[in-house]
Amino acid sequence: MEEIRQQQQQSSSFMVIHDALIVTMDAQNRVFRNGAVAVRGDTIVALGQSQDIISQFSSLSPQLLNLHGHFLLPGLINTHVHTSQQLARGIADDVDLLTWLHHRIWPYESNMTEEDSYISTLLCGIELIHSGVTCFAEAGGQHVSGMARAVELLGIRACLTQSVMDEGEGLPASWAKRTAEDCIQSQRDLHKKHHNAGDGRIRIWFGLRQIMNSSESLLTQTRDAAKELNTGIHMHVAEILYENQLVVERNGVDHGTVTYLDKIKLLQNNLLAAHTVWVNEHEVGLLSRAGVKVSHCPAAAMRMLGFAPIKEMINAGVCVSLGTDGAPSNNRMSMVDEMYLASLINKGREVFGKGTTDPTALPAETILEMATINGAKSVLWDKEIGSIEVGKKADMIVVNPSSWSMMPVHDCISSLVYCMRTENITSLMCNGRWIMVDKKILTLNEVEVVEMAKRASADVLKRAGIQIPTRMNFV
Amino acid sequence: MEEIRQQQQQSSSFMVIHDALIVTMDAQNRVFRNGAVAVRGDTIVALGQSQDIISQFSSLSPQLLNLHGHFLLPGLINTHVHTSQQLARGIADDVDLLTWLHHRIWPYESNMTEEDSYISTLLCGIELIHSGVTCFAEAGGQHVSGMARAVELLGIRACLTQSVMDEGEGLPASWAKRTAEDCIQSQRDLHKKHHNAGDGRIRIWFGLRQIMNSSESLLTQTRDAAKELNTGIHMHVAEILYENQLVVERNGVDHGTVTYLDKIKLLQNNLLAAHTVWVNEHEVGLLSRAGVKVSHCPAAAMRMLGFAPIKEMINAGVCVSLGTDGAPSNNRMSMVDEMYLASLINKGREVFGKGTTDPTALPAETILEMATINGAKSVLWDKEIGSIEVGKKADMIVVNPSSWSMMPVHDCISSLVYCMRTENITSLMCNGRWIMVDKKILTLNEVEVVEMAKRASADVLKRAGIQIPTRMNFV
Repeated sequence: MEEIRQQQQQSSSFMVIHDALIVTMDAQNRVFRNGAVAVRGDTIVALGQSQDIISQFSSLSPQLLNLHGHFLLPGLINTHVHTSQQLARGIADDVDLLTWLHHRIWPYESNMTEEDSYISTLLCGIELIHSGVTCFAEAGGQHVSGMARAVELLGIRACLTQSVMDEGEGLPASWAKRTAEDCIQSQRDLHKKHHNAGDGRIRIWFGLRQIMNSSESLLTQTRDAAKELNTGIHMHVAEILYENQLVVERNGVDHGTVTYLDKIKLLQNNLLAAHTVWVNEHEVGLLSRAGVKVSHCPAAAMRMLGFAPIKEMINAGVCVSLGTDGAPSNNRMSMVDEMYLASLINKGREVFGKGTTDPTALPAETILEMATINGAKSVLWDKEIGSIEVGKKADMIVVNPSSWSMMPVHDCISSLVYCMRTENITSLMCNGRWIMVDKKILTLNEVEVVEMAKRASADVLKRAGIQIPTRMNFV
Repeated sequence: MEEIRQQQQQSSSFMVIHDALIVTMDAQNRVFRNGAVAVRGDTIVALGQSQDIISQFSSLSPQLLNLHGHFLLPGLINTHVHTSQQLARGIADDVDLLTWLHHRIWPYESNMTEEDSYISTLLCGIELIHSGVTCFAEAGGQHVSGMARAVELLGIRACLTQSVMDEGEGLPASWAKRTAEDCIQSQRDLHKKHHNAGDGRIRIWFGLRQIMNSSESLLTQTRDAAKELNTGIHMHVAEILYENQLVVERNGVDHGTVTYLDKIKLLQNNLLAAHTVWVNEHEVGLLSRAGVKVSHCPAAAMRMLGFAPIKEMINAGVCVSLGTDGAPSNNRMSMVDEMYLASLINKGREVFGKGTTDPTALPAETILEMATINGAKSVLWDKEIGSIEVGKKADMIVVNPSSWSMMPVHDCISSLVYCMRTENITSLMCNGRWIMVDKKILTLNEVEVVEMAKRASADVLKRAGIQIPTRMNFV
């Protein structure tokens, strides 16, 4: 695609991308066998059959890009990722949850500098781009300014969130002294400074790490401040059974976190609830009626948390999207793999109720919705992204299915979910700009970032005093 | 690695591969931080610290290959794969088990020609090589001669098996007339013709599709013939609950397939039992005492069958290895992904017994064992393959961890299981010969095979009258 590189050089861009199989993910679920999109600046201005679009715009001499044999999809949206944890990949594999949190993750995070967050977000962003992600929701980290610098450079879209806690056992000393008021003020400041930065690609959300680290005052102040600033709240919800037990004891509700959040009116349509594994039928109803969005993270769920009732949530009308979680919980930050996993895990989970798996559960089209338009709804951005439609921002990915990893393609929709790998994602556009072409990211030097990350991650681990036991028998 | 290409040209090869991190998978689980192996012909003749090996052999002027920054591992072994189903990838996604079998898979398989099996095995072999596989156990297909031709060309190692059935409901007409005697004679003929072909890389095993398609006569004749020819038996065992119910009713045993196979003395150390999902504690004991090998196929299990008690089997001393199953059941034929999945699924499965997952279950070193040395034991070939040891065949893979998909590497063993992707596997040697170098397969033309596969697969589907419903709304 040398053509793309040439286009990239030219500043005033009007282009027609044609001869592609376009999976629009619009409300009619339209797929164009031989489709074209016209992009002016950052926006999709036309969509239709290739021949029609080409002739419609021929008088304007647009740059033409022939994608014969390729698929064009909306960019994928990762609704739960700890970009600041990328440098910590592999520091907490095969350990129990308490070791994971108190002896690896908290020491790591509390020893990060702003520059570490910047480098970590760059490294994570590279992986996200290679796996087709044009927009992500940060799950909460220490240095939002570092993340914002990285996202400006990467060229993709993000809802950034500070990690916020004002109580809880075992917190690192530097975190334990924060008050609810400090937490809110700090996020108001970040909102003022970074919201709508990077040509509008960056939004600032409020964060709540989890219920066990949040006072009721922090919860209700967050609810009110987010409403006032018209932004979202990103929170880990009902992750483990113990969390629910604690909430029942501490807050006198009859089930768990979701029931309690309902009681204090935090269940609203601007809440993005990550994981949401341990919820009962009544709570699924509460989530649905309130319009809460759920980020399902299949790999992290399997490894750390358990099986969320995703099929039940979808049947109840809850908007469920997909997330990778952070590198120490997964360890692949690949939305492509999460799509595959979401299918497998939710088909397999049925065995425990029925005695057989349900190979028809969460079909490929549902999974694609979760990764695109539901992702956009989850980050409160669906008026502008999540599907290929006229008037929306040009956030799109190019898939080359013509290799051993996808061929033969008998069912192109299911192939995208069950066969596609990161290898098949060749190019990515965000906000009308080519960010990756032929698997090469244009906005930064990948090799340099990897080298920076190696050094920075070794330094953080040293400062934090984290020792990782050696496996096997090194000689 | 231009060096490798040059070596490939030279016929009498004596080479020293050095400066690699070598994960040997030997009985002492040794890992050399800066190791070297010397390879003469098809055999590993020395292993040790780089400096020692280089100086030991310097007088012989070996070809030297510096793998600085790379990992060297034994080739992965896929112990359950239907290579003849590769052309059928995507023909049976999101459908129930009966539709899957009677309306998609059986019509497809019964309409294949010998040439189709050849092409399908080539295409599957390409995917296997890219995912680091140097040896596979065919799960049973129609045309073993086609598979054998493909394996000779591919350059890897295989235990090939015919799909064998002599009874059962709903069989295609051409299969329904086979007798047990025909089935045995046909396999004896294949054994005579192809066993030890391809410089000893090909072995012929006996196949049993599954208990519901096998008369008792076929089962016992297979047991005896395999013993007589000193080879293995590959069989799908206890795949679904219904299978066990049928066996209890039909054969008057008190649990299921494994109990029945014990009764007729088919549980022996040359039996490779695929899936083996629906087994109770007593049956796990039977498998262990008999030395039966189990091929765990995590993706297919999640999608179609259920959760096998893998942790319990391992604790009971059963040799458990990994398989991908066939393309219409998975759809990725990637041992790299199966390693990742085996960890996630078996950590997650614990939630149903305990209320929490067990992130410590099946640690990375166990998964690596399953994919290498246990694979070799499962295919009855562990005296020659499955680990990097002096005297064994040179079946090895080169991993480049220095990219965004694996960096940073804080725990190299867990990174190989939880982070590594097919992208990271750069080169592969089988039987002392480089089969893939820098992600390019040297033994065939990948693009040509893909084109052949597209045509052949469309033709088989047409002949078989298989219609795949369209998803979404094509315009």
